[in-house]
Amino acid sequence: MELKSVKREWNTLKKDTMARMKEAAPYVKKGKIVDANDTVALLEAVIKPGDKVNIEGNNQKQADFLAKALCQVDKKKIHDLHMVQSVLTLPEHLDVFEKGIAKKLDMSFSGPQAGRIAEFLQEGKLELGAIHTYLELYGRYFVDLTPKVALVAATMADKDGNLFTGFSTEDTPAIVEATKFRQGIVIAQVNQIVDKLPRVDIPGDWVDYVIQSPKPFYIEPLFTRDPALITDAQVLKGMMAIKGIYAEYGVKRLNHGIGFDTAAIELLLPTYGESLGLKGKICTNFILNPHPTLIPAIESGWVESVHSFGGELGMEDYVAARSDVFFVGPDGSMRSNRAFSQTAGHYAIDMFIGGTLQIDPYGNSSTATANRVAGFGGAPNMGCDAKGRRHSTDAWLKVGDEYGMKNEMYGPVRRGKRLVVQIAETFRGKLEPGFVEELDACALAKNAQLPIEPVMIYGDDLTHIITEEGIAYLHKCETMEQRTAAIRGIAGFTEVGMKADPKETQRLRDKGIIKTPVDLGIDIRKANRSMLAAKNVHDLVHWSHGLYNPPAKFRNW
Amino acid sequence: MELKSVKREWNTLKKDTMARMKEAAPYVKKGKIVDANDTVALLEAVIKPGDKVNIEGNNQKQADFLAKALCQVDKKKIHDLHMVQSVLTLPEHLDVFEKGIAKKLDMSFSGPQAGRIAEFLQEGKLELGAIHTYLELYGRYFVDLTPKVALVAATMADKDGNLFTGFSTEDTPAIVEATKFRQGIVIAQVNQIVDKLPRVDIPGDWVDYVIQSPKPFYIEPLFTRDPALITDAQVLKGMMAIKGIYAEYGVKRLNHGIGFDTAAIELLLPTYGESLGLKGKICTNFILNPHPTLIPAIESGWVESVHSFGGELGMEDYVAARSDVFFVGPDGSMRSNRAFSQTAGHYAIDMFIGGTLQIDPYGNSSTATANRVAGFGGAPNMGCDAKGRRHSTDAWLKVGDEYGMKNEMYGPVRRGKRLVVQIAETFRGKLEPGFVEELDACALAKNAQLPIEPVMIYGDDLTHIITEEGIAYLHKCETMEQRTAAIRGIAGFTEVGMKADPKETQRLRDKGIIKTPVDLGIDIRKANRSMLAAKNVHDLVHWSHGLYNPPAKFRNW
Repeated sequence: MELKSVKREWNTLKKDTMARMKEAAPYVKKGKIVDANDTVALLEAVIKPGDKVNIEGNNQKQADFLAKALCQVDKKKIHDLHMVQSVLTLPEHLDVFEKGIAKKLDMSFSGPQAGRIAEFLQEGKLELGAIHTYLELYGRYFVDLTPKVALVAATMADKDGNLFTGFSTEDTPAIVEATKFRQGIVIAQVNQIVDKLPRVDIPGDWVDYVIQSPKPFYIEPLFTRDPALITDAQVLKGMMAIKGIYAEYGVKRLNHGIGFDTAAIELLLPTYGESLGLKGKICTNFILNPHPTLIPAIESGWVESVHSFGGELGMEDYVAARSDVFFVGPDGSMRSNRAFSQTAGHYAIDMFIGGTLQIDPYGNSSTATANRVAGFGGAPNMGCDAKGRRHSTDAWLKVGDEYGMKNEMYGPVRRGKRLVVQIAETFRGKLEPGFVEELDACALAKNAQLPIEPVMIYGDDLTHIITEEGIAYLHKCETMEQRTAAIRGIAGFTEVGMKADPKETQRLRDKGIIKTPVDLGIDIRKANRSMLAAKNVHDLVHWSHGLYNPPAKFRNW
Repeated sequence: MELKSVKREWNTLKKDTMARMKEAAPYVKKGKIVDANDTVALLEAVIKPGDKVNIEGNNQKQADFLAKALCQVDKKKIHDLHMVQSVLTLPEHLDVFEKGIAKKLDMSFSGPQAGRIAEFLQEGKLELGAIHTYLELYGRYFVDLTPKVALVAATMADKDGNLFTGFSTEDTPAIVEATKFRQGIVIAQVNQIVDKLPRVDIPGDWVDYVIQSPKPFYIEPLFTRDPALITDAQVLKGMMAIKGIYAEYGVKRLNHGIGFDTAAIELLLPTYGESLGLKGKICTNFILNPHPTLIPAIESGWVESVHSFGGELGMEDYVAARSDVFFVGPDGSMRSNRAFSQTAGHYAIDMFIGGTLQIDPYGNSSTATANRVAGFGGAPNMGCDAKGRRHSTDAWLKVGDEYGMKNEMYGPVRRGKRLVVQIAETFRGKLEPGFVEELDACALAKNAQLPIEPVMIYGDDLTHIITEEGIAYLHKCETMEQRTAAIRGIAGFTEVGMKADPKETQRLRDKGIIKTPVDLGIDIRKANRSMLAAKNVHDLVHWSHGLYNPPAKFRNW
């Protein structure tokens, strides 16, 4: 046999890392500790041009001190970085591009920085790899987007680099494992360096440097919704959802998207849900951040378990005191984990339900607008039919049995389908239509030269749309033509809805593909805020027996 | 506001666990160490009737000592357990049902025990929850199948319960995290208790008891294929795959299923692949266990990275010496991780390719037989279209652009589609047909009273079938009728193939939906074993520069 093996070294990554760490050695004090004042110097020692770099920052906790430090490196030394990180929310996440330190970006969600990304793209300051759902990006960390250097955040560290991430563990395990085991370098900013951690979340062997940041990491209460701002229209849609979908399919395992629509549903469970006799029959197991609006349902005995992607400011004590419900560690504080929660959100839930901004006549929906590259976070992962799923639940089987296109898709075998529900308003404030003939995502794809339109949820995955007009049971449709008619039938006075043929809409009602509040037997007069189990944040505190400690901006008492 | 909160305790799980651990206290020696002789007593103290229990054992490493111990508990004390575990391969995994210790089962794969599961089901000795793909089962660990007690395996522990799982980390992190953070109990059997671990894979805070087992955990070299057993027919199909699919779509990121078909492809890369000028253009990033048959491609410089679900016996030193390619820890040994590898396999790869036993005229395929409840492990997770995916690659976009049903599915937006390829023989040994009008999975569903037929890969996910007759490009079909005709066209003299209409087959060839070896420009005379880069295991050792150390059963020299 003739060997044509290539003559090469097989541990160049490791050698390169060792050389960088040698350069950084002067900045290391006791164990793995680096002084905050030496952060920029440390980064200049361990990061090289062209590196893939991750700055931890999901939509909650942020490695903000390290993000700021990266903006201060000498761009003659460090440039052309490829940022591979789930979220861009801080100005510094874009400043590195403005300053010429970073060049390429692969990400999941950009919230407040979405407009700047679009600008930078057009100005050539930034090259966009792709927009991912969170779990997809973590997957690529182990394939072709492994960070060379990861800048993460933790609550505490000890001198050996062991980290306590606790309540806000979030993305840290996925980032650190991918980076460290591909010979990369892990730097953690921590709020505090202590002798003994409450518990170890990340072993010290996986962490190279720890820095006590001057201020605790930045964190935002993103999932808190004040019940006082829930509208009567949201109460109506919530009642329709509970009666026409949750009860109809017996939805037990689920995720609620962020927003007032789902907050309304959470607050209707102990009132409207109770009146329908649904306790124990729906909403028993959640994949969800610790939403304060879920407190009344938990306290009323509706909820068996909640696994969380991340924490939520103010909910620490409440969660710790409810260890039968939340995933709490031996030290008494929760461990969140976005990778596992998204895994469960993809494969173990019967339904994803959330709000959207625009839906087209094919059922594609998106929150993208023409000049903002925002991404969708976890929504695509949960808002799709998980085709690899092989276990059955009643809800999943019922949707599959009702699926109108099954014969064309997989013939005479039986398969289920996940409920993917979008709640929309026909018109939002300023008369912006919730239904459009073409999504703004199409304009964005052109403007930002994206290879595909950024669609959050595709029409073939979407099973139900809820508007104030009614529910469309889209999965029952046998053709695209029928699906489009069903969408037009609940789209009100939007351009999409105006094209509805009233006779066809009536036929779809007769077939149970469209159901109005009347068809559902909902008394619209009762659909108002008095149905909510809590009317404001103070009520939530009351329900929590004082354990929920809302951030200042949610307190008006 | 009227509070209707339920009066209840909110930390009953924790109290229950503490009570059990108190009962177990007499068996604990130094730190968290329990003597192997006290294992049965420990299990009787911490397990209660009806518990959900996990015995770690994926298709490689097995917590075999703990599995045996569980068979020895007093069934008057412990019964009606609900086993939630990914794999049943050891006789003891079924013995617990035979003995009346366990009652219900949720699992992923059962290999050699598949026949006994079917028997036990019929005899009422076992109640089957569901069959899952691995990642799906891990997801449910965080929702409704959280183990109360987990019996796991590690290479080493220290007295504080820190674990070194290294090369064979596999499922341990997912199991332990779900169990421990829902107030459960984690017991680890380890090969060795040491003062200082090479590195920490699982923090000691997450582990309650460690037991040094009398023998190292059982592990099997499941992914090793001897090149000497590869047939000329497999070489032909491998060449067709490389030219007609890998090259056609530019497949860079991929997973290879277990088996000789894909082993042949691995061994054709440095020969046939090289001759087509494909190095660097295909097969650069793998999600794969350390297959010995991949060694020649790695040594020839084809492979940039490999992330592994688990280890493979004999590959330890080779992998450690190739840290540029594999994910290797600071101590120098690999860390596998099935949860992250399956995540990557779902979301970050362009193609899954593997073998199957039966395909029906709708394109549904299965390895299930009428009297064996076997499961499919990771195949459904990788062998499906990952609908949550939002990043583009050339391969993914090309399949999406060719997708014949796209207008009916999602209208005029652009979306990609993952390559899902099944390699089949029209007839296997004993003349068993690879194509059947009805899958044996249908009979199994009836026999075992399963709610759905155990289909491994569904027709709407499958993009290509390769047989010795040709490749069917199924995703190009616009209707089920056309898909069925394409399948019949490459199904040879099976009952499915005999119904092919030669004129329709020719039309499909004209449209590029079927391609024969001739259509692909493959010289069949060259399709023989001489094309393989290694002809036997000894050749693989040679390619590895002596670093691969094959298990005894693969050595004949």
